[in-house]
Amino acid sequence: MVVGRRWVVKKPFDGKPNMDNFELVSEELPALQDGDLLYENIFVSVDPYQRAMAAMHQTPFTMFGFSVGKVVESKDPNFKQGDIFVSHEGWIERGVLNPAKLAAEAAGSLVAQPVTKAPDLKGLSPSHLIGACGMPGCTAYFGLLELCQPKAGETVFVNGTAGAVGSLVAQIAKLKGCKVVGCAGSDDKVNWLKNELKLDEVFNYKKCSIQEILEVTYSLYLKKKNYVCCRMLILQKGAPEGIDCFFENVGSADSSAIIGHMNPMGRIAVCGTISNYNKKEPLMAPALQWFMITKQLRMEGFMVGRWANRWPEAIGQMAEWISQGKIKAEETVLEGFENIPEAFFGLFEGTNTGKMVVKI
Amino acid sequence: MVVGRRWVVKKPFDGKPNMDNFELVSEELPALQDGDLLYENIFVSVDPYQRAMAAMHQTPFTMFGFSVGKVVESKDPNFKQGDIFVSHEGWIERGVLNPAKLAAEAAGSLVAQPVTKAPDLKGLSPSHLIGACGMPGCTAYFGLLELCQPKAGETVFVNGTAGAVGSLVAQIAKLKGCKVVGCAGSDDKVNWLKNELKLDEVFNYKKCSIQEILEVTYSLYLKKKNYVCCRMLILQKGAPEGIDCFFENVGSADSSAIIGHMNPMGRIAVCGTISNYNKKEPLMAPALQWFMITKQLRMEGFMVGRWANRWPEAIGQMAEWISQGKIKAEETVLEGFENIPEAFFGLFEGTNTGKMVVKI
Repeated sequence: MVVGRRWVVKKPFDGKPNMDNFELVSEELPALQDGDLLYENIFVSVDPYQRAMAAMHQTPFTMFGFSVGKVVESKDPNFKQGDIFVSHEGWIERGVLNPAKLAAEAAGSLVAQPVTKAPDLKGLSPSHLIGACGMPGCTAYFGLLELCQPKAGETVFVNGTAGAVGSLVAQIAKLKGCKVVGCAGSDDKVNWLKNELKLDEVFNYKKCSIQEILEVTYSLYLKKKNYVCCRMLILQKGAPEGIDCFFENVGSADSSAIIGHMNPMGRIAVCGTISNYNKKEPLMAPALQWFMITKQLRMEGFMVGRWANRWPEAIGQMAEWISQGKIKAEETVLEGFENIPEAFFGLFEGTNTGKMVVKI
Repeated sequence: MVVGRRWVVKKPFDGKPNMDNFELVSEELPALQDGDLLYENIFVSVDPYQRAMAAMHQTPFTMFGFSVGKVVESKDPNFKQGDIFVSHEGWIERGVLNPAKLAAEAAGSLVAQPVTKAPDLKGLSPSHLIGACGMPGCTAYFGLLELCQPKAGETVFVNGTAGAVGSLVAQIAKLKGCKVVGCAGSDDKVNWLKNELKLDEVFNYKKCSIQEILEVTYSLYLKKKNYVCCRMLILQKGAPEGIDCFFENVGSADSSAIIGHMNPMGRIAVCGTISNYNKKEPLMAPALQWFMITKQLRMEGFMVGRWANRWPEAIGQMAEWISQGKIKAEETVLEGFENIPEAFFGLFEGTNTGKMVVKI
């Protein structure tokens, strides 16, 4: 008899997630049928999109998400004991899955291959398969390069800059010869981004008030270039030549001020709105349309599944850059299956620098 | 001695424009030099963008804008007496201009040819040169076809639908085989759009409150498909299958509700924000980022000068469609040079159906 544990969302999220939303279920696993794998996860991912997408599921449900698993026993001829793979089965300690059945269920969706054997990571930690060499890495790679299309010499602004995606976007933009400006929620993160990742300018967004943001936006509407306030000074100091590309991870009222500071023909990739995921009402922000018109901006929202058939390209490139020391794939690692919810809560408190992963 | 009149903006607009902003100047015109034209305008345009762009000019200035002029006397070998041309010299009754000098000044800007001889309009009124066969027509043509790229069978939503640009966008979309949904500010306009322009669904936006809009947006965030309120019912009734293309002329909080009702991979062309031009503070609206991501929308703002070298293509096509009766180029015509400001004020009160022009 094999027992496995999984984290179940028993009560829909309403505002900030907390332990009342979760239940740790322990159960006997079914006997293996033909085509099944018995596996143990070795790394489980927590990501902001899980908070947002949970609303699509009916409780109770096993929390979905990416993980790196290891085959314990295989009745699928394509997998053997010890094989490492990535799945989207979620917060599972030990479980049974059937790759062929999952693939059939996913046919026609954006998930091309729900169970993917680990590619050769050139000696890097397999934890990167749910980070810089997995979904977050592909998100940064395609979102920036396909939608923002940054050119050498241009200025790229990325918010949530110390996060899993933001820190990679910033580094890819630097590799492409751009000036990179960012923001983060602590001085430690600001220093890390400046000193370790070599960003050109970074500010601590917690040191300005919302009222100031609105005043910045207002001043941009009025084209009062000499309007004095915190964020305006920051943007002018950080990007006096304006912003050409904006990679949006946060979706706060700040974004309107950033967009108001963009250059003609600027490009915006909308990747995430982490500041809204726990809100009970839609965020009100200064409308963007005026800036969109007068600066002829292009803004595109995306989910990375759009490029599912090109993930291997991005993963290979990220692994190469990391191996060469050109990109730092920072991780904040918590240990223990019991601690997954805590890691998840931390995403919204900014406790992670780089990718938050849980080592099982 | 030849005397000419022009309308001067003597005091910057602040809120709604009114007669205190304007002064009617009467003056003796200079003697013609080599290369000069003495001309009289026969049609003068009033357009919403004039309100927005006026902030770029230092008062006092002659109000800029498109007009259709007729040559009275020419010292430019390329023009002869009686020639009809389009310029952007503004609210001028009778004046002197130098096509070559203006072209030299405009070199490198988006205005390829500041003084353009009228193309053959196949017998249509030359007033269309500042309407369906001029800037507004090009705006509708390129904004819709280049940025929204509507496909037959898709649903197109255009707001400000009874206006100069909106009414053309709606008809071009119908010609391309789309279902077209719109909104306007009076029941007469709604009826005209439905009965004359054959739109599929049109609603009167003045019959719902802002609070309702916000509630619609909120309900869309929460994915409560059965949430009951005015605009939700309208959108569900008008476009139960969702919106694929949105041509934005208005920029109100409504737009967030419309965008929340869009289909995956939808396209938004941002052309105007007429609801904001007279506002003293930036409009606050439900943030768009969440919809941009989850529906993977593309939004692009534009100014029609971007396609300056392709205007002849659009003008030729529009003239052909109008001649064939496939597009109705509706005009609201005021008479008399003195009445230009009144025509301009009317744009923001919705007194026009189709293009507002002043016949001199």
